[in-house]
Amino acid sequence: MSLSSKVREARVVFTPSGKRGYFPLGTPVLQAAQILGVDIDSVCSGRGLCGRCQIVQATGNFPKHKINSKSENISALSDTEKAYSKRPKKNLENGRRLSCATTILADCVIDVPADSQVHQQIIRKDADAFDIEILPPVQLHYVEVWQPDMHDPSGDLRRLREALEREWQLKDLRFGPGMLLSLQKELREGDWKVTVAVDYLGQVIAVYPGFRESLCGLAVDVGSTTVAAHLCNLRTGEVLASAGVMNPQIRFGEDLMSRVSYVMMNPGGDLEMTKVIRSAINDLALNVTSQAKRELDEVVEVAFVGNPIMHHLLLGINPIELGGAPFALATDESVRVRARDLNLKLHTNTRCYVLPCIAGHVGADTAGMILSEAPHHREAMTLLVDIGTNAEIVLGNNQRLLAASSPTGPAFEGAQISSGQRAAPGAIERVRIDRKTLEPRFQVIGSELWSNDPGFSKDTKGIGVTGICGSGIIEVIAEMYLAGILSQDGVINGNLAAKSKHIIADGRTFSYVLSNGQHIIHVTQNDVRAVQLAKAALYAGIRLLMERMEIETVDRIRLAGAFGSHIDVKYATVLGLIPDCDLKQVSSAGNSAGTGARIALLNYESRQEIEEVVRQVEKVETAVEAKFQEHFVQAMAFPHKVDSFPNLAKVIELPAEIDMQNHASSIQQRKIRRRRTSNKAL
Amino acid sequence: MSLSSKVREARVVFTPSGKRGYFPLGTPVLQAAQILGVDIDSVCSGRGLCGRCQIVQATGNFPKHKINSKSENISALSDTEKAYSKRPKKNLENGRRLSCATTILADCVIDVPADSQVHQQIIRKDADAFDIEILPPVQLHYVEVWQPDMHDPSGDLRRLREALEREWQLKDLRFGPGMLLSLQKELREGDWKVTVAVDYLGQVIAVYPGFRESLCGLAVDVGSTTVAAHLCNLRTGEVLASAGVMNPQIRFGEDLMSRVSYVMMNPGGDLEMTKVIRSAINDLALNVTSQAKRELDEVVEVAFVGNPIMHHLLLGINPIELGGAPFALATDESVRVRARDLNLKLHTNTRCYVLPCIAGHVGADTAGMILSEAPHHREAMTLLVDIGTNAEIVLGNNQRLLAASSPTGPAFEGAQISSGQRAAPGAIERVRIDRKTLEPRFQVIGSELWSNDPGFSKDTKGIGVTGICGSGIIEVIAEMYLAGILSQDGVINGNLAAKSKHIIADGRTFSYVLSNGQHIIHVTQNDVRAVQLAKAALYAGIRLLMERMEIETVDRIRLAGAFGSHIDVKYATVLGLIPDCDLKQVSSAGNSAGTGARIALLNYESRQEIEEVVRQVEKVETAVEAKFQEHFVQAMAFPHKVDSFPNLAKVIELPAEIDMQNHASSIQQRKIRRRRTSNKAL
Repeated sequence: MSLSSKVREARVVFTPSGKRGYFPLGTPVLQAAQILGVDIDSVCSGRGLCGRCQIVQATGNFPKHKINSKSENISALSDTEKAYSKRPKKNLENGRRLSCATTILADCVIDVPADSQVHQQIIRKDADAFDIEILPPVQLHYVEVWQPDMHDPSGDLRRLREALEREWQLKDLRFGPGMLLSLQKELREGDWKVTVAVDYLGQVIAVYPGFRESLCGLAVDVGSTTVAAHLCNLRTGEVLASAGVMNPQIRFGEDLMSRVSYVMMNPGGDLEMTKVIRSAINDLALNVTSQAKRELDEVVEVAFVGNPIMHHLLLGINPIELGGAPFALATDESVRVRARDLNLKLHTNTRCYVLPCIAGHVGADTAGMILSEAPHHREAMTLLVDIGTNAEIVLGNNQRLLAASSPTGPAFEGAQISSGQRAAPGAIERVRIDRKTLEPRFQVIGSELWSNDPGFSKDTKGIGVTGICGSGIIEVIAEMYLAGILSQDGVINGNLAAKSKHIIADGRTFSYVLSNGQHIIHVTQNDVRAVQLAKAALYAGIRLLMERMEIETVDRIRLAGAFGSHIDVKYATVLGLIPDCDLKQVSSAGNSAGTGARIALLNYESRQEIEEVVRQVEKVETAVEAKFQEHFVQAMAFPHKVDSFPNLAKVIELPAEIDMQNHASSIQQRKIRRRRTSNKAL
Repeated sequence: MSLSSKVREARVVFTPSGKRGYFPLGTPVLQAAQILGVDIDSVCSGRGLCGRCQIVQATGNFPKHKINSKSENISALSDTEKAYSKRPKKNLENGRRLSCATTILADCVIDVPADSQVHQQIIRKDADAFDIEILPPVQLHYVEVWQPDMHDPSGDLRRLREALEREWQLKDLRFGPGMLLSLQKELREGDWKVTVAVDYLGQVIAVYPGFRESLCGLAVDVGSTTVAAHLCNLRTGEVLASAGVMNPQIRFGEDLMSRVSYVMMNPGGDLEMTKVIRSAINDLALNVTSQAKRELDEVVEVAFVGNPIMHHLLLGINPIELGGAPFALATDESVRVRARDLNLKLHTNTRCYVLPCIAGHVGADTAGMILSEAPHHREAMTLLVDIGTNAEIVLGNNQRLLAASSPTGPAFEGAQISSGQRAAPGAIERVRIDRKTLEPRFQVIGSELWSNDPGFSKDTKGIGVTGICGSGIIEVIAEMYLAGILSQDGVINGNLAAKSKHIIADGRTFSYVLSNGQHIIHVTQNDVRAVQLAKAALYAGIRLLMERMEIETVDRIRLAGAFGSHIDVKYATVLGLIPDCDLKQVSSAGNSAGTGARIALLNYESRQEIEEVVRQVEKVETAVEAKFQEHFVQAMAFPHKVDSFPNLAKVIELPAEIDMQNHASSIQQRKIRRRRTSNKAL
């Protein structure tokens, strides 16, 4: 006598995945989806609490699937769903249903909307960047735990483990000893119902009493000048709040090398700097959580980027080895560390992920830039440049990646320039010089008007004209060159002093006076030299990588960082900061290091990806490459003749011929000549 | 044209393992041993530094192996060995050779002495205990690391990893972020030669500059009254130093329950107690390392045992749940935690292993006792008893293990007894009462003489007779019973007051006067009652487990802890603390919890073993067993008649008949009667 009987089944197709199967009538839609491996979210394990598992029935006839998906083919709105809709900020609109509370009654087609999927995507505004797929490093699991029983004296932790395995098939989770300190309280506060945050490595991060819906993470870009933090919803990727502060280490030294010097001169100085940077991060965390009306203990994951010295100081590693050859990193691996081991006041078990450094001068910030820009996913030969006191340069595509750092010095940041300043209101950022009269006009940060526009004074009242910032320096020097004020070798032509009041003697050299009658800023011969040194260093680094890659041109250029965002790529090309390239293919990457931190925060698989890419990047140490010096010397001059930069010539008025005072010419010119010679020989 | 040629090989046999193989002539003996998997130690990876890999050639003819092992069949004493012998405290005697510096020249037999093996054994003096096999949880590996190079900018950590893999085949080791803080300093201090301590889980614990020979571990028994620590050599198992202190938590409450009450009355009281116990452990660590002339940072592993409340307080877990039903442990798993997370000032990466608790009243100390006594490795049905304020009882063999805790109260520790005191100089510990005259004689701790011996007063001068300790209480009450002063129900027979000056009226009851003319200690009716309650609780617990096991007798009894070491098992049997058993099979187990901690410290495989055993132990909660109360009431009386305890009758003068005032008799007697009835029926 057999008790078996044929169970009636229905055919179910899920869109957009196309996954399909047969299920016994009465099966909850969520269960069917989970059995098929459909990407559908759930925190409450089908209890109708979280609302994450919403679906919409696609009604109508689907000949392709041989299904007539009638509305009565799924169960009617359940009490669970009605109760869910009554809760504040919860409702089921536009035919939305809770898949956990909806059962299959006959063949049907079920659509899983994007916001019900675990693996969501962030669409980036920057058309030149890839979208971000979300794979949260920490996920929530609601469970109901059996209460302790004298007849079965198992510990609270064991019963919690059993619940996680029973309801979520989660096995062998690691509960750090710190979890034990509050576990009993949390279980009892939640009346044995808790939401458990588990990270992608199987580490339990938090046990929250009761039902909890969402978690946050923090992406932090530790720059030597500024520290920026973004609070993100770990599920949707949404940036809930952002904040930035000056790096308080500045009081120990303006730039990286002076901070390392401080440690050399003051044993224990590294500990001071570690303390202040961690304190600043705590302040930022408080700032962004307050803005977003979240608690600090909701922040369960942090991702960090920073240059090698910031990286070491953040982790509490003495950076002294990075101050001199051979510039040995303590580690070039990624680091996973408890937030509290960095004295960060987040959830007691929050973990931090610090992206890997690449070499002694090429840090986790560059790793972040690579992760954000993903040149390794492209066919196009891409040049990534992040300009600061050092310029980090990455060159390559899906075949090969090279990276180097070039010592540009702080000129591009406004330092070492007589009237230089950081990019701040009042700083000149745009400059034009009339080719004939040599009269300048300019814009300052904080105003849309040009200095010769009526109303400029009124509009800049309270701002003033306080100096010139990095992008302004690039423009004024490029314009001086284009207007013939500067020779190709960077000498201000004193002969012009007779022609224009804007060229004045300054000791044995000359200066250009950037004024509109009211405000006066001098651009001295020394300023020009400083920019020449900086741009030569940058270009020599790029050139070195191009030679190593055996290429003469690049397909794309992405300029990262604050300077890269403000700079006008035309002028950067005129001065020879970057090689000639179709200007449509030159763009700002924004704060790509910070974006990289955000990607690493939101997508745990991206961590393994960047770790592997970083291993494969070929590191080029400019300091030991004899060729670098050669390129550097050659790149000091302003190289450009109209026919050598066809791309640039399309968008900017270039001088057809420049009055060359000597023949120290750039490598490009020589190469072009050589090519011409070859042409002749053919 | 082939370059291959037949390489000449020799046959090598290693003893005592018997492992054998053929090796090319010139192969170092160590390498041959390692290839064959012979158990042979080495820290320096064959550099002739550590001297761990010593062997002795067995010379002569070995027909069994077909080898004539002539002395010239291995290489002559090498320069490396000569240099090794010249170092302080190093030499090669009795034909010892460094296997790393000795090569195979022809067939030979090589003996690996016990002290050259990784897996050594500690022979225990206690003949009833198993020897301890050593499997150190942390081992040392000496490596030479490649220096950083500008052309290959890999981090110091990566080059260390490469060295560990190159020289020791150690892969995927985990370096905690804490390791990074000092790594660069250590590598440079050691001139790129370091010794790395790696634990059995692949976690790197320490990187020591240069060559390091040995490591220590600490085994700690956290008792509610005393805390004891043993510093051990992790390789040999040798106890280098031991120390004990009073548990400073005593000022918050004498016994466990009063400490839990303190937490209930004083929120945050648990934190105070956690702080003081950790501080006491730090003091102990300093004490034992100073004694052994070691540094605190040489202590790389700690093993802890303790009852559940001590366990929770040590880990910083509020023990309040253990103060009331259902006595839920935070966890019944073992805990591995960084020493510094317990504020222990050892090496910054030292890990602690805390043995698992079994149930709310049966702690990691009982797990330690099981590990030390290993009843699960024996055929014999073994009863383990550790008597304190609670008695922990384990019953079983290699088939099945039961465990329970019984609330004996503090009477056995001298508390609740009018003249009771802890075991300390001056406390009466041995008592005899003349069966006819009822005259007592006694011994006190600190003197070998009996109180009626000439010279007792002189010998105890400065000590005095200050009270009576646990073992003394057992003896005096047992002797009172055997002398007929006590009835089976525990009533002091007032009629004897007329016969002996040692029985005196004390209100409505009588007391026995324990005196030698000079010192007077009273044993009151209340004292007898207190001991009856305690012993009834203990016996009821044992009885409950025996019933659950369905046995009437046990094969072996082991008494653990301080009380178990001092008690005379005869008297314990007379009073009915333990069931009758061949007295040769009743013995003291010493501080078996502490020994368990030492085993867990020295043999990492024992940890998995005890974790598995603890999972399988059947926990019996006396508080919810109705039978317990029944046994308890029945066990109040003193049960023993000479014929019911044949084992006991062989070694002690038992009264043939006792004047029974009532018939509340023990379960044994009833069972025996029942058995007799059965016999008659046959």
